[in-house]
Amino acid sequence: MSKQVMLAYSGGLDTSVILKWLIERGYEVLCFVANVGQEEDFKAVEQKALRIGAKQVIVEDCRKEFVEKYIFPSLQAHAVYEGRYLLGTSLARPLIAEKLVQAAKKENISVLAHGATGKGNDQVRFELVFLQLMPHAEIIAPWKDPEFLSQFQGRPDLLSYAAKHAIPVTSTIEKPYSIDENLMHTSFEGGLLEDPSHAPPETMYKKTVSPFDAPDQPLKLTIEFEQGIPIRVIDRISGQIVPGSLALFQALNHAGGRHGIGRVDIVENRFVGMRSRGVYETPAGTILLQAHRDLELLTLDREVILLKESLAPKIAQLIYNGFWFSPEKEMLMGAVQSTQKDVTGTVFLTLYKGNVIIEGRTSPQSLYRLDIASMNHAGRYDQTDAKGFIKINALRLMKKEVV
Amino acid sequence: MSKQVMLAYSGGLDTSVILKWLIERGYEVLCFVANVGQEEDFKAVEQKALRIGAKQVIVEDCRKEFVEKYIFPSLQAHAVYEGRYLLGTSLARPLIAEKLVQAAKKENISVLAHGATGKGNDQVRFELVFLQLMPHAEIIAPWKDPEFLSQFQGRPDLLSYAAKHAIPVTSTIEKPYSIDENLMHTSFEGGLLEDPSHAPPETMYKKTVSPFDAPDQPLKLTIEFEQGIPIRVIDRISGQIVPGSLALFQALNHAGGRHGIGRVDIVENRFVGMRSRGVYETPAGTILLQAHRDLELLTLDREVILLKESLAPKIAQLIYNGFWFSPEKEMLMGAVQSTQKDVTGTVFLTLYKGNVIIEGRTSPQSLYRLDIASMNHAGRYDQTDAKGFIKINALRLMKKEVV
Amino acid sequence: MSKQVMLAYSGGLDTSVILKWLIERGYEVLCFVANVGQEEDFKAVEQKALRIGAKQVIVEDCRKEFVEKYIFPSLQAHAVYEGRYLLGTSLARPLIAEKLVQAAKKENISVLAHGATGKGNDQVRFELVFLQLMPHAEIIAPWKDPEFLSQFQGRPDLLSYAAKHAIPVTSTIEKPYSIDENLMHTSFEGGLLEDPSHAPPETMYKKTVSPFDAPDQPLKLTIEFEQGIPIRVIDRISGQIVPGSLALFQALNHAGGRHGIGRVDIVENRFVGMRSRGVYETPAGTILLQAHRDLELLTLDREVILLKESLAPKIAQLIYNGFWFSPEKEMLMGAVQSTQKDVTGTVFLTLYKGNVIIEGRTSPQSLYRLDIASMNHAGRYDQTDAKGFIKINALRLMKKEVV
Amino acid sequence: MSKQVMLAYSGGLDTSVILKWLIERGYEVLCFVANVGQEEDFKAVEQKALRIGAKQVIVEDCRKEFVEKYIFPSLQAHAVYEGRYLLGTSLARPLIAEKLVQAAKKENISVLAHGATGKGNDQVRFELVFLQLMPHAEIIAPWKDPEFLSQFQGRPDLLSYAAKHAIPVTSTIEKPYSIDENLMHTSFEGGLLEDPSHAPPETMYKKTVSPFDAPDQPLKLTIEFEQGIPIRVIDRISGQIVPGSLALFQALNHAGGRHGIGRVDIVENRFVGMRSRGVYETPAGTILLQAHRDLELLTLDREVILLKESLAPKIAQLIYNGFWFSPEKEMLMGAVQSTQKDVTGTVFLTLYKGNVIIEGRTSPQSLYRLDIASMNHAGRYDQTDAKGFIKINALRLMKKEVV
Repeated sequence: MSKQVMLAYSGGLDTSVILKWLIERGYEVLCFVANVGQEEDFKAVEQKALRIGAKQVIVEDCRKEFVEKYIFPSLQAHAVYEGRYLLGTSLARPLIAEKLVQAAKKENISVLAHGATGKGNDQVRFELVFLQLMPHAEIIAPWKDPEFLSQFQGRPDLLSYAAKHAIPVTSTIEKPYSIDENLMHTSFEGGLLEDPSHAPPETMYKKTVSPFDAPDQPLKLTIEFEQGIPIRVIDRISGQIVPGSLALFQALNHAGGRHGIGRVDIVENRFVGMRSRGVYETPAGTILLQAHRDLELLTLDREVILLKESLAPKIAQLIYNGFWFSPEKEMLMGAVQSTQKDVTGTVFLTLYKGNVIIEGRTSPQSLYRLDIASMNHAGRYDQTDAKGFIKINALRLMKKEVV
Repeated sequence: MSKQVMLAYSGGLDTSVILKWLIERGYEVLCFVANVGQEEDFKAVEQKALRIGAKQVIVEDCRKEFVEKYIFPSLQAHAVYEGRYLLGTSLARPLIAEKLVQAAKKENISVLAHGATGKGNDQVRFELVFLQLMPHAEIIAPWKDPEFLSQFQGRPDLLSYAAKHAIPVTSTIEKPYSIDENLMHTSFEGGLLEDPSHAPPETMYKKTVSPFDAPDQPLKLTIEFEQGIPIRVIDRISGQIVPGSLALFQALNHAGGRHGIGRVDIVENRFVGMRSRGVYETPAGTILLQAHRDLELLTLDREVILLKESLAPKIAQLIYNGFWFSPEKEMLMGAVQSTQKDVTGTVFLTLYKGNVIIEGRTSPQSLYRLDIASMNHAGRYDQTDAKGFIKINALRLMKKEVV
Repeated sequence: MSKQVMLAYSGGLDTSVILKWLIERGYEVLCFVANVGQEEDFKAVEQKALRIGAKQVIVEDCRKEFVEKYIFPSLQAHAVYEGRYLLGTSLARPLIAEKLVQAAKKENISVLAHGATGKGNDQVRFELVFLQLMPHAEIIAPWKDPEFLSQFQGRPDLLSYAAKHAIPVTSTIEKPYSIDENLMHTSFEGGLLEDPSHAPPETMYKKTVSPFDAPDQPLKLTIEFEQGIPIRVIDRISGQIVPGSLALFQALNHAGGRHGIGRVDIVENRFVGMRSRGVYETPAGTILLQAHRDLELLTLDREVILLKESLAPKIAQLIYNGFWFSPEKEMLMGAVQSTQKDVTGTVFLTLYKGNVIIEGRTSPQSLYRLDIASMNHAGRYDQTDAKGFIKINALRLMKKEVV
Repeated sequence: MSKQVMLAYSGGLDTSVILKWLIERGYEVLCFVANVGQEEDFKAVEQKALRIGAKQVIVEDCRKEFVEKYIFPSLQAHAVYEGRYLLGTSLARPLIAEKLVQAAKKENISVLAHGATGKGNDQVRFELVFLQLMPHAEIIAPWKDPEFLSQFQGRPDLLSYAAKHAIPVTSTIEKPYSIDENLMHTSFEGGLLEDPSHAPPETMYKKTVSPFDAPDQPLKLTIEFEQGIPIRVIDRISGQIVPGSLALFQALNHAGGRHGIGRVDIVENRFVGMRSRGVYETPAGTILLQAHRDLELLTLDREVILLKESLAPKIAQLIYNGFWFSPEKEMLMGAVQSTQKDVTGTVFLTLYKGNVIIEGRTSPQSLYRLDIASMNHAGRYDQTDAKGFIKINALRLMKKEVV
């Protein structure tokens, strides 16, 4: 009996060639396809894999879980890598890896394969989860396999192999950059983006129009949160109400995309030590991050806000580096989760040509107290208390000069 | 001989009334007026104070020092309070207080007065610096003085006092909110802004147009940094070059303002314990923060970036709370300063209707290595090293399941 | 009807005078006495208060709660203020304050009084909790009351007042330092300790002998933890087993005290801005901290350990400063709590003349893997993986020199 | 011409076999021997290497630099790994590696060899520095070389190879644990220490006696610091004065060793992912850490102390993991260094049977102010200021209950 392998399959040229190559090496290959919101004809992907020779194709719709268990917690933590990147790909990888391991365990398979390269972050994100959830897994990563690497030195080799083995190819022209797409974002890197001094081409983007091409008419939205979770989005002009995690996230992607929201162009640090240039479009994530932060400023204690903001960069790094299931990330997210019970309320915003403009916010948990803050009300606050407050705060700063 | 007091004087109604009130109480009052970039006729301010009865008026142009020693270091630290506020007022206060103390020492004066209220942050920022730099200072803060408070219970009391004492008043109508202005920003709070669920009125803004009113034609800028300091701004369309800290900051304020850059509307936490709603416009600061962060991503080590981002919220809180001269802020800024020697290079950006769009960046200190990052070059990076890297990183995550 | 006040009463001279003074001012005074493990005849304290004129005396045994809800969590967090002080008093104050507020609410009383001075930390710890749990409380703190202060300028005034009002006084001689005692520690400050260059007198200590006077025979103990909580202490020589939080804590106090464990002599920073010299003896706390940390090194992930150690100083500061019930402390303790589920196991130690010597440890949750760690077993660990691990870690450090 | 290699040589069995093995493989081998304070006859080591066939032997006395540039800065940072380990070996490795690279550069050699195993931390510490300071270095690590590993599967293989090649061997009996020794500490691991539930044998220790065997007579020492650096140690009984970094460190090692100071027995986390059990004796380091911390509590601001204690665990991890020359460690040490200018003064302590007892401290930079702290002096501190201080601190904690 031949050995079985579970392959993370996308339907693209690379993983299709890998599928065939594994079969040639004597493996029975089961393909795992995760629907994380990429634009794809999953029926066609399945057919393609079976035609190439896959023993079985498992397509799993992970979109709701992606939004609720990965995207929302990351946004609650304000996890933004290096101050700019909202982690779209980093969030999808552990989910795909987890689901693939679950499928493999069900089929009693302990050989896992993926098509990520040896220079990128995705290999780390896949393999760390593989090894954590299935410590005895054997991992096949052809792009780090010397034999595979010597056989396939460039796209022409892949194409001629595909032609030889009747693997259907959608386009023989190399894309001028590589793309990853899911519900959270589209990412672009490599190829003509590799010179960080040049702007990316406008034609590249998939989820967003340019702020230059966005409509003159703004969109006015209301987002309602309950305990840190967005639960409803309302178009204040049309009156349309979108409830439900996946539906509202899709609606915000559509709205943000139309209005040019969420493009980021950065040079970033990969976990494997080199820098790369990445371009991202994350419309819904960008809107929700702004709205969520705004609501926290109304509902969370200031020292809690400080701690959250101080820990956020570390959480983002852990997610980026592939440590989604690590105990340290669990510990930090435990701290974040404990703060969200009061983040309930409503944020009003306007989308306009790339801008997310906060118009106002309300909350039943609001810590804003007009009677205290107002300069026109004395209220309970005794202004002379401030004297003592300042003098005692100053005491340690005055040092020896005071006698 | 009557006792002398040095008053932080602005020329407005409040400090003019305070000036007179102090004179009535038998003080000889010297007025200290700091030019930190507010729109003001300083000649007229001086005349006004003298006419009211000031013994002397000292007007000091602090603009260059404000930009170089306060604004630029804060931007290098990415100090943004509660994730949103760029600290325009917080940065100006310790500078004004420091200069006032210097002036007082020169005149041998040890009584210092200011017009900040007892509910705000500015009283803390002023008084902490007063006490730190002049530990024996006696501080007069009329808005915390029970006698003053009972005499002046609202604007009508101030106006009638002004009328009675022939203090010139520019407008008898109360402003619907209070304003603070300097080179870094204009801030608005109080009055009709006190309901955080309502958007501020468009007519309020002084430094910026709305993104809605910004020109259709974008502005293309190049900003050059040397060791973390912006040294030159170039308009890539007109070819105009602006060198010099103050001049380029003013140019960026003008450019950003025209293109609707840098408005922020938040609920924030005052140090004295209550929340307030603040609206800010910070065009140049917003542009420089974006450009500086972008250049750091090209030139700083990733772990340095992580530490900088983790410490930034604490630095921002210290500045906001008035601890500019504190030893802990010095310690943290020492860490920040030690990282800036490599932050040299050029950032290309486009301003368009509220957006600061990064187009590209170059640096002689760039850590971006195309030969390593490129997926098309093997270079020195050995893809099989990644296997060992991942397996060893996974080891601690696998726990007991592995035997 | 006269107004009622709930007084935190200790039975000592100060609070006895305050009790009488409040009665003289027309209050009906209810005394709240918390048993937090101090050596005290609580029956006599009650009688004394009633004889002075208290309307009612409530004595509450808080010892078990003190150990379980205050001491153990603090030890789990490794909360040690300024690297030395184990927070004995800081932990007791919020407990006493909370219980006092509960008692006051039950009696429908909203005036709360305490005998802490205006220079120390305890006033802050009491009043922050009073105000947080009973925001409308009126607080009477005689040692900050100008009238009280002018009446009682030193101990002679207190004594003559006591004599005049027939308040029983145990000793008319002033103690050469002030003492606070509870289950966790005895603390000493003030008086002849105020010169930090001189060692405290040996006769001062109450819970511990000097290491010089400890027995030559060591004590061999075993401490068992379950999920971060000590559940059993075994004397390995006598075979005696002590289960139960309070009993084992008392047993460790006794054992540690006999063997000279847990004395600390420091200069510390009070929250109110000045430095003071404090001497502490904390036998059980010192032993448990050592044992708990040792067990964590066997059972927690290394990155979790790093985060815990990094956050511990902040947690300690919050406890020291009186922010026990603050949301930021809750957030940080939430992170700590989430790590304790695996801290189960047994630590073997020897107490000898001031030393807590760890002899060994075992755990069913041990992450120590002899088969991996041993230099004599290859095991699953592939030594050549280390090459890739190191090369990739080095990549970002090599910078531009590599071509 | 044969290729040249620079080998980190210790004189022990392993590196002697490696020396011969490299020569057999056709290398000309230069041996680099660093004197970091280990007990060693360096003349004999040199002779041995030359007799085996080394082309040249470079012995460098690094002791002073070790104390001043590695040990003292680490102690200033309070860098203690996982709360217990004072980093003796971790500090020596980058120094040895740096000196070896300097020697190699001088000889124009770019092949570097070391005898560290593939499971330990030292390989990482050596190789990270090699690659950082000489990015094009070729590194030979025989214990990770499959050929070497298959030839030498245990100590018997090493011994028979030594016998065959007339390599002098001091003892044919395997040590029951492995030892590393330098000025800072002696470390023990492996062999019979591998069961963390059993105490190490008393006979193992080299630098310290057991507290049980320490003299009944205590030693009374005075340590003087200048800007965070110990500059003089005085034996208060004999009156002997020891100035100078290296001399005083050696004196403290001797004194501490005699009095049983500085033993630690832990389970620790290696950077390469597994846990190991380590036992350390660090007499001088333990004494200096205690004294330095004590003096900081007298001379540093409390918020600076908090930041220092919060960053210390990260600094320790970086040193432990081999990132001594990393930019993030430089950044953090920059922050630490900026605080040391005021850490000047004198600490009085007693060494007694394992205890470092602080007796007192003085400093010209003392921030301790008796006139403020004393409960018997009113001084400048106004006790009623505390009321305002507390009320304003409480404001944010009271939340919505207040109206």
